[in-house]
Amino acid sequence: MKTYLDCYPCFMRQALQAARFADIDEAGQKRILLSVMSALESMPDGASPPTMAREIHRLVREIGGNPDPYRTVKVSSTEHALTWYPVLRERIDAADDPLDMAIRLSIAGNIIDLGASVDYDLEESIDRVLSQPLAIDGTAELRRRLGEVSRVLYLGDNSGETVFDRLLIETMDVPVTYVVRGAPTINDATRQEAIEAGLEAVAEIIDNGSDAPGTLLETTSPAFRERFDSAELILAKGQGNFESLSHVDAPIAFLLQAKCSVIAGELGVDEKSLIVKSPGN
Amino acid sequence: MKTYLDCYPCFMRQALQAARFADIDEAGQKRILLSVMSALESMPDGASPPTMAREIHRLVREIGGNPDPYRTVKVSSTEHALTWYPVLRERIDAADDPLDMAIRLSIAGNIIDLGASVDYDLEESIDRVLSQPLAIDGTAELRRRLGEVSRVLYLGDNSGETVFDRLLIETMDVPVTYVVRGAPTINDATRQEAIEAGLEAVAEIIDNGSDAPGTLLETTSPAFRERFDSAELILAKGQGNFESLSHVDAPIAFLLQAKCSVIAGELGVDEKSLIVKSPGN
Repeated sequence: MKTYLDCYPCFMRQALQAARFADIDEAGQKRILLSVMSALESMPDGASPPTMAREIHRLVREIGGNPDPYRTVKVSSTEHALTWYPVLRERIDAADDPLDMAIRLSIAGNIIDLGASVDYDLEESIDRVLSQPLAIDGTAELRRRLGEVSRVLYLGDNSGETVFDRLLIETMDVPVTYVVRGAPTINDATRQEAIEAGLEAVAEIIDNGSDAPGTLLETTSPAFRERFDSAELILAKGQGNFESLSHVDAPIAFLLQAKCSVIAGELGVDEKSLIVKSPGN
Repeated sequence: MKTYLDCYPCFMRQALQAARFADIDEAGQKRILLSVMSALESMPDGASPPTMAREIHRLVREIGGNPDPYRTVKVSSTEHALTWYPVLRERIDAADDPLDMAIRLSIAGNIIDLGASVDYDLEESIDRVLSQPLAIDGTAELRRRLGEVSRVLYLGDNSGETVFDRLLIETMDVPVTYVVRGAPTINDATRQEAIEAGLEAVAEIIDNGSDAPGTLLETTSPAFRERFDSAELILAKGQGNFESLSHVDAPIAFLLQAKCSVIAGELGVDEKSLIVKSPGN
């Protein structure tokens, strides 16, 4: 997905928010905004939004001198999500259609996205995914493919959301390789946060070698690329993975909430819509 | 008031919104955003927000090739406000304290600000100003000064809001010079829109010679400056006039709604607060 002009003010807002989150002083905040503007001026046509988001969070780490400013909030997001784990595990196990419920709950977890908004209401998100119809519903096709493949490549997204991914992985009944970012970027999960969510017990964990908040293939490692290219089915969580992979020809099912007007417009749905976009959808 | 870093993403949003409002194509929208970023990079420290807003709306007029893209909406805002005139005139005349009500209603009209938001609810704004306490209440001081001066210099703001200014001017019982922008900029009132609101019958109308959406004294005409410098009491409506004059040493009463978090922070009030900030407040 290309970067729309509506993303420009949003990048500026995100950069300022991230700089303040990282306790960077006003002079540093201004340096970051000026650098973001300079990067926007030279951004190649067709670059996807995570290209710029990667730059923003690099700047925040460099200028703030903190390699992982979101570490504390990633820990607390995971801990908070883990308090939900037992009750959600029970609800899934008792459901008429556990896979459907687990898919929906994995989308609920996608609300924990500090790029889209620093305030999120996890309980509201859980209630909503269990009652709201999917705006794009590729569940049947996803279910069919899950029954056919020998392994799923699962592209994770935010810390905390990882716990909801774990619930889905436990329910899917197929071996999973769970992919995390190669280095900290905003609140996205790295190997450390995936382990803290308990994913090591249910999936092979690999990293993609990149610090983009999405999956910008050109920035990932050859080892990840090999797994990606040979995957029978890829589950991609969240906006960043959608923005960076929507144009890629691969067997990808996208699971996300459409949290901004640009993504909603790209998908032809309303904001806050729930999406299961399977290959062929 | 200086430009805060929070204003940077907001300028980008305003520029994109204005470009689209003026039916400028995507290539033109991008040119405008790039020019705004370039202007932000070279903006002198301490410049007030209307400095940049003036640039934005100049770019929109130039690149769109339309000297007054908001003309149609200015006409309809005035017509809409005029439908309210008779009932509000009656309410003021029947009020225990007509001046207090007219001051409040003039602040209600300040919601018609297409820079702050393209959607506004005039009826909600009227209801709110008649029930909500003023967050800064310089009404008593303003009333005292109105009883002492021989003429008021009244700095107008948006088209449509002009009708609410007329209600106040009719109620004040002191001669008024009503100041409009010297040239079109966003939906701010020029002489034409002031006349359409019926202000010619109740005030002397002069223009300030400037196309800034505010009162940037350095961009105004010598004739206006002379009036400004010799004014016994200046009534300044809206955010743009506050942003550009808050640091100026003059007998100014600011009447506005705090429509964004930056203004609210500067004034030490909550967003959506109603302000009558008299000299000495």
